[in-house]
Amino acid sequence: MSAPIVHGGGITAAAAAFGGRPEDWLDLSTGINPCPVALPDIPPGAWHRLPDRHLFDEARFAARSHYGSGEILPLPVPGTQSVIQLLPRLLSQDRQVVVTDDRIAVVSPTYGEYARAFTSAGFAVDAVGDVAEIGGEHRLAVVVNPNNPDGRVWPVEMLIALHDRMTAAGGLLVVDEAFGDTDPALSLAARAQELPNLIIFRSFGKFFGLAGLRLGFAIAREDILARFENWLGPWAVSGPALSLAASLLRSDVSAIRHSLDERSAALQATLASAGLRIRGGTALFTLVADSRASDIYTHLCRHHILVRKFDYALDWLRFGLTPDPAADRRLGEALQGFER
Amino acid sequence: MSAPIVHGGGITAAAAAFGGRPEDWLDLSTGINPCPVALPDIPPGAWHRLPDRHLFDEARFAARSHYGSGEILPLPVPGTQSVIQLLPRLLSQDRQVVVTDDRIAVVSPTYGEYARAFTSAGFAVDAVGDVAEIGGEHRLAVVVNPNNPDGRVWPVEMLIALHDRMTAAGGLLVVDEAFGDTDPALSLAARAQELPNLIIFRSFGKFFGLAGLRLGFAIAREDILARFENWLGPWAVSGPALSLAASLLRSDVSAIRHSLDERSAALQATLASAGLRIRGGTALFTLVADSRASDIYTHLCRHHILVRKFDYALDWLRFGLTPDPAADRRLGEALQGFER
Repeated sequence: MSAPIVHGGGITAAAAAFGGRPEDWLDLSTGINPCPVALPDIPPGAWHRLPDRHLFDEARFAARSHYGSGEILPLPVPGTQSVIQLLPRLLSQDRQVVVTDDRIAVVSPTYGEYARAFTSAGFAVDAVGDVAEIGGEHRLAVVVNPNNPDGRVWPVEMLIALHDRMTAAGGLLVVDEAFGDTDPALSLAARAQELPNLIIFRSFGKFFGLAGLRLGFAIAREDILARFENWLGPWAVSGPALSLAASLLRSDVSAIRHSLDERSAALQATLASAGLRIRGGTALFTLVADSRASDIYTHLCRHHILVRKFDYALDWLRFGLTPDPAADRRLGEALQGFER
Repeated sequence: MSAPIVHGGGITAAAAAFGGRPEDWLDLSTGINPCPVALPDIPPGAWHRLPDRHLFDEARFAARSHYGSGEILPLPVPGTQSVIQLLPRLLSQDRQVVVTDDRIAVVSPTYGEYARAFTSAGFAVDAVGDVAEIGGEHRLAVVVNPNNPDGRVWPVEMLIALHDRMTAAGGLLVVDEAFGDTDPALSLAARAQELPNLIIFRSFGKFFGLAGLRLGFAIAREDILARFENWLGPWAVSGPALSLAASLLRSDVSAIRHSLDERSAALQATLASAGLRIRGGTALFTLVADSRASDIYTHLCRHHILVRKFDYALDWLRFGLTPDPAADRRLGEALQGFER
């Protein structure tokens, strides 16, 4: 069992260390839309009954329409994390036996749970710097697009070429589009039906601001989705999550995109005014590079603002979106008070 | 991959076969409280944020108080099903390797997902008729107490003796108390801290009538729970589920118990009036034995009432609770119309 990874969202621990009530902290440590959509009504039956196939199918049809996945009906999963943890098992086919010298490539640095899942299962993981370094020796490759935390993007055609290289060598390509909702042109979803060895993961909660819901989707060929579904077991996704997906994924999301763009621009302006160098990001977070990142992190904690730091890149800080102009000012004032 | 098991809750399929709108059917095919508790308020943050450790801990403390598990803090899981599927992996320790001649005992007939999980993982499963048949050759034994669907119960002392036999031979005992909330005296929860090789599963949704929520708890020694938690990964349980657990598991549940007893008595009276022989049950369902069970099943479907039949016991029908006296009358009239 490898050590758990510290993710964003640890406001309770931060408040215990630096004081203040958790609810008074400004949490910029995650990449979640800070202005959640209004919750549509959830019918009482979605709470009461085991999620029926009908509700499950409604969510799948809505997801197909939203993600544009053509003939593929995306599979609802209880958070992308749940299927990340099943990837090693997918490589062992229907056995639970993984005794292998197979190598896994993860374009890095990126979301740490991929390397953790494969390492715990006994695979050798190569943290490669770019897709060009992925070769025939890799049985599975992971690309997060856009990447977390640096926001790097890989064009669709480059990933299709990678898929074809992987396929020729009998390998699988996983493309995690968790931060992909704000830039649909980057998504491989529309091409998935032609790409048999591709698995796409989508996150529901980040874009809609409903991360507590635990909902994601997998898009892949039918037998891969059937295996995920079988391993997750019946009723893996809650009724309220399926119900919200069925309505929100059919709604007009242009106002959400607009709000995220506006919030992202405000965040970048605040960071730039404070003299911070923007290293990358997506509409849902901005990455800053600064040699005094660790001191800035602590300084912000003293102002009860939590951002994300990284063990593997001590000069990086990731800032999630601020919810409103008041929070922009609060962040700006705290940053202005940092003595360089 | 073994074939999926048909569980209750398939109203959509039944309505497609026998007509009527799914919402007009009387669904007696599950063992879920038909009178769900009023939903307490869910704070917006439970939907919006990734479930924080603080919320997770609140649910654990509330569960400890409700289940009476002493020093053990029950682990929230996204439905008991999620941990049933991890049991094979528990036997393989930290490897994902299961290459074994170990035998598993499941006191049967019972909830089918145990046998399915172990069989898919390559274990040999002995369906034993009673706990007395479980021996030293069994590396893990499963007892559902009270049992589904026949309502058989095993006294605490008998299960503790079984635990001690299993422990002496290096085995584990799983006691599934999914239907245990209505009879707390049957629970092993209060003894769990003295029983190192015991794993208890509890279901949240059946008793509270919130099966769509996907929430259960595991009670076991700390290293077993830590392994489950690691394998489920971060944020396995949704924020709304943790929030509802934290408040409902601290509430006075005597009114729920009273309502279930009243509904159960009404169901049994309805079944007895129709001349059906009651074979067993719990406060959440009643099992009937009748040589014409299959015809009664079809007859009820024609009246848009769905009950549960069993491949392995063709003379059994399981009736879930009716929600109110009107439903009792509807069921009674449909049964009276059955021509023997």
